This record gives sequence, structure tokens and C-alpha cells, in this order.
Amino acid sequence: MDVGVYGLGIMGSNLALNIADSGFNVSVYNRDSERTEAFLVNSSHKKINGFKDIETFIRSLKRPRKIILMVASSAVDKVVEQILPLVEKFDIIIDGGNSHYKSTMRRELELFSRDIYFVGLGISGGEEGARFGASLMYGGSQKAYELIEPILSKIAAKTQLGDICSAYMGENGAGHYVKMVHNGIEYADMQLISEAYFFMKRAFNLDNLRISEVFDKWGEGELSSYLIEITSKILKYKENNEYLLDKILDVANQKGTGKWASVEALESNVPVNLIFESVFARFLSGLKHERIIASDILKMNVDSFEFELSDWILDLYYALLVSKILAYAQGFMMLKMASTNYKWDLNLGKISLVWREGCIIRSAFLQKIKLAYDKNPHLINLIFDDYFLEIIREHHKSLRRIVSKASEIGIPLPAFYASLSFLDSYSTSYLPANLIQAQRDFFGAHSFERLDSKRGEFFHSTWE
Amino acid sequence: MDVGVYGLGIMGSNLALNIADSGFNVSVYNRDSERTEAFLVNSSHKKINGFKDIETFIRSLKRPRKIILMVASSAVDKVVEQILPLVEKFDIIIDGGNSHYKSTMRRELELFSRDIYFVGLGISGGEEGARFGASLMYGGSQKAYELIEPILSKIAAKTQLGDICSAYMGENGAGHYVKMVHNGIEYADMQLISEAYFFMKRAFNLDNLRISEVFDKWGEGELSSYLIEITSKILKYKENNEYLLDKILDVANQKGTGKWASVEALESNVPVNLIFESVFARFLSGLKHERIIASDILKMNVDSFEFELSDWILDLYYALLVSKILAYAQGFMMLKMASTNYKWDLNLGKISLVWREGCIIRSAFLQKIKLAYDKNPHLINLIFDDYFLEIIREHHKSLRRIVSKASEIGIPLPAFYASLSFLDSYSTSYLPANLIQAQRDFFGAHSFERLDSKRGEFFHSTWE
Repeated sequence: MDVGVYGLGIMGSNLALNIADSGFNVSVYNRDSERTEAFLVNSSHKKINGFKDIETFIRSLKRPRKIILMVASSAVDKVVEQILPLVEKFDIIIDGGNSHYKSTMRRELELFSRDIYFVGLGISGGEEGARFGASLMYGGSQKAYELIEPILSKIAAKTQLGDICSAYMGENGAGHYVKMVHNGIEYADMQLISEAYFFMKRAFNLDNLRISEVFDKWGEGELSSYLIEITSKILKYKENNEYLLDKILDVANQKGTGKWASVEALESNVPVNLIFESVFARFLSGLKHERIIASDILKMNVDSFEFELSDWILDLYYALLVSKILAYAQGFMMLKMASTNYKWDLNLGKISLVWREGCIIRSAFLQKIKLAYDKNPHLINLIFDDYFLEIIREHHKSLRRIVSKASEIGIPLPAFYASLSFLDSYSTSYLPANLIQAQRDFFGAHSFERLDSKRGEFFHSTWE
Repeated sequence: MDVGVYGLGIMGSNLALNIADSGFNVSVYNRDSERTEAFLVNSSHKKINGFKDIETFIRSLKRPRKIILMVASSAVDKVVEQILPLVEKFDIIIDGGNSHYKSTMRRELELFSRDIYFVGLGISGGEEGARFGASLMYGGSQKAYELIEPILSKIAAKTQLGDICSAYMGENGAGHYVKMVHNGIEYADMQLISEAYFFMKRAFNLDNLRISEVFDKWGEGELSSYLIEITSKILKYKENNEYLLDKILDVANQKGTGKWASVEALESNVPVNLIFESVFARFLSGLKHERIIASDILKMNVDSFEFELSDWILDLYYALLVSKILAYAQGFMMLKMASTNYKWDLNLGKISLVWREGCIIRSAFLQKIKLAYDKNPHLINLIFDDYFLEIIREHHKSLRRIVSKASEIGIPLPAFYASLSFLDSYSTSYLPANLIQAQRDFFGAHSFERLDSKRGEFFHSTWE
């Protein structure tokens, strides 16, 4: 058999079917063999063989063996321990789950000393992607990549131009790191869309159908993306003649990768406030009980205002576009930083291509990012690319008008606010951090650098 | 001897002098005995004895021994290992450094099994506080507290009313946790002040002296605080007839406790965006080189506008006051959450009192917080206290005008923005998180709760 899939949850099952459809012989195994049984009966795919016993499962594989683990990240260590006595030199264990990249780095190092390849494979696209074409982010040995690449290329999503949304990212944890940043961006993208929806609902009093039509229209231009597309569908969807969206509790949960991205940003000094505010917005949504009390006590009603709808919709469109650029720019700042810190030599253009189709943030927009990095792989910041620069230059005033109006009338747009404060901070050559550093020197003798002196020279003042 | 101080850096030296001045006999020890020598010569305090040898240092202490470690947090484990063979049952080791509260919890547990008390003592107030009265946050055994309390009460700062700014916070890591939150709030407080300064400088074109005078005025009212006081001094301070502040590089550094607070908030789902944006603002300040490029390319000049200075200064005052309330409210949200998670039963009123004097965020404002929690120890949120509620009700429009204007003319005020988006989110009973949860259900079958159904019941839709 060409490849083994360990774990037959919905993701594992779909991935196995995808690989089999691509012409490879697949061995499958699940801890609970009843699930294996059920999967084999339901799928009855002639290229899939199931095993109840871990030993025969492993032995069934052509050497060097390729074993894809599709298990909960909390189970990876245990599963590795279980199969380690059964695998041999140069076999490849691939973790296709949502593991933290640091765990992947640790495992890669541990197994490297035994001549077993351990790969962290970021897979995005959910059930659909696993079944019919996912976005695949490989992190691990280059040598092992050459052996597994033919399979990955087949099961990956493809762009309309035929490009494959799967690539070698870098050594050890690179694949899972890139996947983590993908998810961080996903949080921000979703939050921005939900704020645009909220603004139309609260400021313009538009109903769901009208808002849906606006998103449809937006989906035809630069904002064309999977998330805009499903947002429009969600807005239109009715159950018993009522919009389902209006019946949904406003508490957004999360599985944790957005937090991981935020913690990582904190540890590596990257100011990704859009990702962060998006994670916090979900926390705030969870304080439903307190929010009801606060709303009752504070009665911060949204003020109405005179508006020309078409002008404001256009402003909102550009505010969303500019904010989206900044959200992605922040994600790529993280990638750039990690690439340096971990010496991964990440190819940012290739990453944009991998995200172009298959994953949740797939969009036309990513094609523009790819072009930017193809043109200049050493771009200091995504916003310095001409295409994005031009949009920001032309349309930052739209973002200003939305934030200014929202703050005035009382509509919370944390991600829009964050994007504008980031943009204005990032483009201010002299920030008030001089005062903070002076305060630190005043109360803690932490010293400061001077404008009229070399970097790295520190001074202290008595201040009195 | 009554107590031992291990570590004679500036903080340790000053603390030893403070304890000796309070009438206790102090043994001191430093890894490098030359420093001990120098300290003894310089201070020549008859209540202080120095030791070159760790054994005689420990043996010199009255049992149960009280040993205060004033060493870098990275050295604590090594020092504990060094003194562990020399101490006996019921001796008390006190970590007075900036250790992470989780390390303190681990150490407390390890030493508890050997019948040695390990205490995490948060000390705030810098060199001055250590020498003449600090803010002391004790975390550890109640029994050990009774033994060390007489010393702590003497060396702590006192309020004008004679209250002592030292208290028992809770078991194990509570003291260091409270100190961490103190520092998180400190970051936000400093950032807000620096943004108020920036707004006066950029929007009103005021010079440093005028801005200093504004802060002097503000320091007479609700905003009266140490940080406002030093800000005014810093603004006025001249070197060779030029303002020193204007010569300082706008890159703010940090030692890491603000990051700790942010990571902690992420892990416990508390949306402290003011603390977070303040940490990020320092990261952004560090990107000086990129900011210069961006400023050059984007040329986002601050637009001028017509203004009545006195009105706008008043708005800025209230914007700062409202934002400060929200920053502290966020800090206390963290304390409340940790109190529950770790069963510390934190006394929030007492914490405000401990911060009232001695520490960096000392202020009249903290007296109001103390009153709020004295009146209602179970206050759901600080902003629900009448005093704070009234300020927010009366003056949120000032914050709106500042944010609205700043976003329009292009002055980055990340912490002000964060405070308004927090306020409006927190007081909105129905947020757009319904859409996020619908998207999650659409692409990942993550399910949602319904408004017309009980909490805890989850639903899934096909959406098509």
C-alpha cells in the first residue's frame, strides 16, 4: 500500500477517500475498529484497505512508509509512541492535525535522532477540502517531501490556472506555523466581515436580504472570496420563513488557533492587533450576561444620522478592503519574523498560492499577494507593494469615515478601529513612545536612546 | 537576626536598608561577596550584618528563618536549590522578584512537600519604593504570612490616612499574579497618557510647556496620580535649554510583564484590549525603520481642523478619564477571573488599597476603586459602580469626539480606540457574533446556540 491514514474522524476519512480517488492504495486504521469497519462498508473503495490491528496496518505499507496521523493534537504523542516500535529507518510520520508548531518541532527533533522523519502538515479547508482538495502546508525534511509530494500534489486544491495549492514551507514546524497564521488571518477576516454586516444593520437599518445583496455585489470585485460568498448565503437563508441568522445566539466560540497566533505574536513582538482584537471580540461575545446588564444600565443607543446610502456603502466597501489588506499584512509580518527567527526561509509568494484555493480564506485577493511577493520576495511589508499601496492611498479616507462615524454614533467595530490605528501608527515616523521611554527612565532608570545619538547608546537623566 | 536578604542589586540593597531602618536585624548575602562588602561599607548600618558564606548567612537567622530573595527571576530556581539543604522545617523563602506566578505556584508546591514555605511577594515601587515604602502583594501560606507580616507592614508604603499598602492576597501565586496585573494596567495607563500628549502635540500644536501645564491642571482632579505628575515634570525638563523629551528616540522597550498579562488574558478569555494595545504600541514603536519608510511613502499627514482649545482640552480630559476607568476595569476583570479559576478569593478592595501608594500606578483614583469594592465586593464589573458609571454616562461623548476626530485627521490613538470599542462592545446586548458563529457552522459544522432555545443546546444547519 502507498500510504497509511491513522484516524478515521471526518477529516481522516475524507482525506483517505481523496487519496484513494487520486489513484493511490491507502491503508486505514482507527483506534476503535468499529469505526474502521463502518468506514470500509460505507465507502467500499477498492483502493482502500482497513486494518484492525496496528501491526498489520504498519506492515501493509510500502517502505519507506508514509503514515498520515489524523488525530486530535492531544493524542499525537501517544500515537507516535504506539507506532514507533513498528516503523523503521527513513519511514515518514505525518501529523495532519492542528498541532502547535512548537510541539511539531519537538517531535521532529526527537524522531530525527532515530532516523524517522516527522512531518507537520497543515491542512486547511475543513471536510470539503479534505475530500476534494485542501490547502496543504508541509513542514519537515526536504528529502521526505520528495517522497510524499506526488500524493500531496494530487489531493491538494488547484487554482483555475492549474496551480497546486500545496507546497513545501520549510523545516520542522514551518507547516503548522503557516497554518496557525492562516487561522489568525481567518479570525480577522471573519471579524471584519461581521463588523461590516453590523454597520449596515445598525447604522443603515438594512435588512438581511439587502445586506446579502451588498455582499453579493462586493463578491464580484477585489473582495471576491469564499467567506464573503458564504456570508451572503447565510444572510439570505430562511427557516420557517424567518432569517435563521437572526435566531442565532451572538456568542462566538473558538478552538484555539487564534489564541496561539496571538500568543506567538506577543512572544515575537509583532503587533498584529487585528488578529488580536478578533480573538477578543469572541471573548466579549461570550460575556453575554454582562453585556445585557451593561446595555440595560448604560443605554448606549446608536445615534441615527443623515446619510446617502450609496456613498456610505462605498465607504464601507473600501474600509473593509483597506482593513483586509492590513489584516493580511499583519499575518505576513508574523511569517516574515518566524522565517528569520527559525531560519525557515519561507517563500511568501508560495504561501499565498497555497491559500489561494482549498482553505477558508481562499480568495482572489491572495492572487494579488502572490503577485506582490513574486515581484519582490523581500518586500519589507505587504502594504509597500504598489497594488496595495495604491488602494490604501486612494481609500484610507473611507476607513476614516467609517471609524469616525461608528465612534460617534456608538457602533463597536474593534477590528476596523484596530486597522486604522495600526495604519496610522505604522505610518507615523515619530510616535509618542518617547514619553513612555522617558517615564520608564524616570521611575525605573531604564534609560533611553536619543535622536541625536547612535542607536544602541543609552542615556539616563535625573529629570529634576 | 530577624530576616535575611539574598541579592544586593539596587532593589535588594534598598529593601535591606528599609527593613533595617524599620528596626529589624538584617543579614545580607550576595553571590559576589565584593558587592556585599561594598554595600556594608557604603551603608554602615548597625542593624545590618553581611556574610560571604551562604551557610553562615542562613545560620545567622532566627528560626523559623525568613529569607527574602531579591534576584533575577531566571535565578530563583538555582538559588532555591542552593539554600534548600541549609534551611529547616517551617522556614520561609520569599521571592521578592518579578517571577511569573505559575513558576511561583510550582515552587510553592515543590517546597510545601518538604515543609518549607515558599512565598511569592510582588513588590512595586521601584528603587524608591523598596527604600522608603513599597506596595507589597503577598501570595502564599496564611501561616507564614502571620510571621512575616510585622516586617512587611513596616516597610510598606502608607496612605495619608495611615493605611498600610501591603496585604495578604491569596495562596501560592496570588501575589505575583496581582503584581502582573498591576504592570498590565501600568502599561495601559502610560500608553493613554502618551496618547493624550500626542493628541495635544499633533492636533492642537501645543508646545511641551503648555502640555505640561495641562497635565498639572489635570493632576489636581480625578486624574491625580504619580504618572501624571512625572509626565508633567518630564515635559518641562530642559537640558541645554532644550526639551529633553524631544531628543528621546520614540522606541519604548519592555521587560515582559505586560506580555505576561496579555498571554494570561488570552488563556483565560478576558478581553483586556487596552493592555494589549499598549503592549503592541511598544512593539510598533520598535519598528522605527519601517515607520520612517511608511511615513515617507504614505505621507499620511495630520489634517488640521478648526477648534476651540478649551472645549477640546476638556474632551481630552474626560476621554482620558473614561479610558482610564476602562483600563482598570479590564485589569480587575482579570483579577476576578483568576480569583475564581485559582480559588484565591482575592479581595479587590484590598488590592486597590495596596496600589494606592508606593507603586507606579498610585493615584487618588484607586481610592475610588477601593470604595467601590468596599461597598460591593461582588461587583460584576468595576464600571457598574455608581461613581464610575456616572462618569461614563456623562462623558463617553468626549471619548467619542476624540476618537472620531483622531480617526478623521489621522492621529493614532490605539488605546483610546480600544477603550471605546470595548465600551461599545461591552454595552451591546446583541453583537454580530451571530454571523461568526453561523460562518463557523457553515464551513466547519461547529454548530450554534439559538436565542429561542436554552443555553447549552447546539444546532447545525445545512445552510442551503
